[in-house]
Amino acid sequence: MAPLRIHGLAMSTCTGRVLTTAIEKGAAYELQPVDLSTGAHKKPQFLALQPFGQIPVLEDEDEDLKIFESRAIARYIANKYETQGTPLYGKTLKDKAKVEQWLEVESQNYNPPISTVVAQLVFVPMRGGTPNMDVVNENLAKLEKVLDIYEEHLSKSEYLAGDFFSLADLSHIPYTHYLINIAKKGDVITSRKHVNEWWQKISSRPSWQKVVELASNK
Amino acid sequence: MAPLRIHGLAMSTCTGRVLTTAIEKGAAYELQPVDLSTGAHKKPQFLALQPFGQIPVLEDEDEDLKIFESRAIARYIANKYETQGTPLYGKTLKDKAKVEQWLEVESQNYNPPISTVVAQLVFVPMRGGTPNMDVVNENLAKLEKVLDIYEEHLSKSEYLAGDFFSLADLSHIPYTHYLINIAKKGDVITSRKHVNEWWQKISSRPSWQKVVELASNK
Repeated sequence: MAPLRIHGLAMSTCTGRVLTTAIEKGAAYELQPVDLSTGAHKKPQFLALQPFGQIPVLEDEDEDLKIFESRAIARYIANKYETQGTPLYGKTLKDKAKVEQWLEVESQNYNPPISTVVAQLVFVPMRGGTPNMDVVNENLAKLEKVLDIYEEHLSKSEYLAGDFFSLADLSHIPYTHYLINIAKKGDVITSRKHVNEWWQKISSRPSWQKVVELASNK
Repeated sequence: MAPLRIHGLAMSTCTGRVLTTAIEKGAAYELQPVDLSTGAHKKPQFLALQPFGQIPVLEDEDEDLKIFESRAIARYIANKYETQGTPLYGKTLKDKAKVEQWLEVESQNYNPPISTVVAQLVFVPMRGGTPNMDVVNENLAKLEKVLDIYEEHLSKSEYLAGDFFSLADLSHIPYTHYLINIAKKGDVITSRKHVNEWWQKISSRPSWQKVVELASNK
């Protein structure tokens, strides 16, 4: 099999989601850097791959396939390499249903507030701007309501979809890492016993540690 | 097989997504109404099924399964009934990858602006409020940018994921129906040749027509 060609940057949250998935599945990959600082993601060559001008994009020569959207790429890798590496969808139809449920909760409920907080506190200053703290506080409050539901759920379940690490847990890692380690707003995680235990488990996985290492080399 | 028990309302956009999927797959189902007007979705009995207090929820006795999030439920139905009805994921691994890509585009790019416009123009007045037209216009402009990319793509592809009707197309139907037929902002669809042809095809499917009929009976 040809290596998966991942266009993106290891330090990008959405590229991180895809890289972590590839590593968990033991899939060979190569990272093709996209230089956001020169606007490479808005140039015709990249827009032909991704019309919305966002990273990451996956190219898989085996299937003559080019796709974008990080959660779609992660699902594709989990499907293609179903029989190797970590069983990221669990084992049964029911496991997979629960994984999809919590992937959607991440996408619809968790991601909007956490990505807004991280954008304000990390990406706005990177571009020389000043964070809007009203937006930060409003979205931290929304995130805390979501985390209250996670805390209750994780008091009864080791991981989100059951007793196994899945694509749903994995999908939470990149933005939560930024929230804690760069935006320094980790108290919303660490102040919740079961959420914190879950975070310690998922963030210490060798797959994610490898992505952190790749990101620090850029 | 036991019928799928769908807790929700046919007139709800997210319940409509699930019902349309069940009908396309020829899956037996029963609709269990949730009376939003009395706040049934915020009461302990419902919150035990869905801690975020939103419809729909699916119960499937065959698998002793209860799940929420409409796109997760739709994927589950497409998986469980893989061998019957419309092949909503296509036929190959590559087809499925493209379906997942466009499902994510719907979820991440299309749904945020269209659901905001529909909320302002339909749901706010239903509750006696006045729409914020700045919010409406800002989100219509965002939606138009997304639709420009759809127009280009649909000039080369009959449906979003290829030459077959899929879960990705289906997922767009409920909010687009509200935008055109209730919010009366359909010009953003009908003014784009290929988007309009696509909309005529997907909205005239008997599955969706059945959901419109169910909704008009409530």
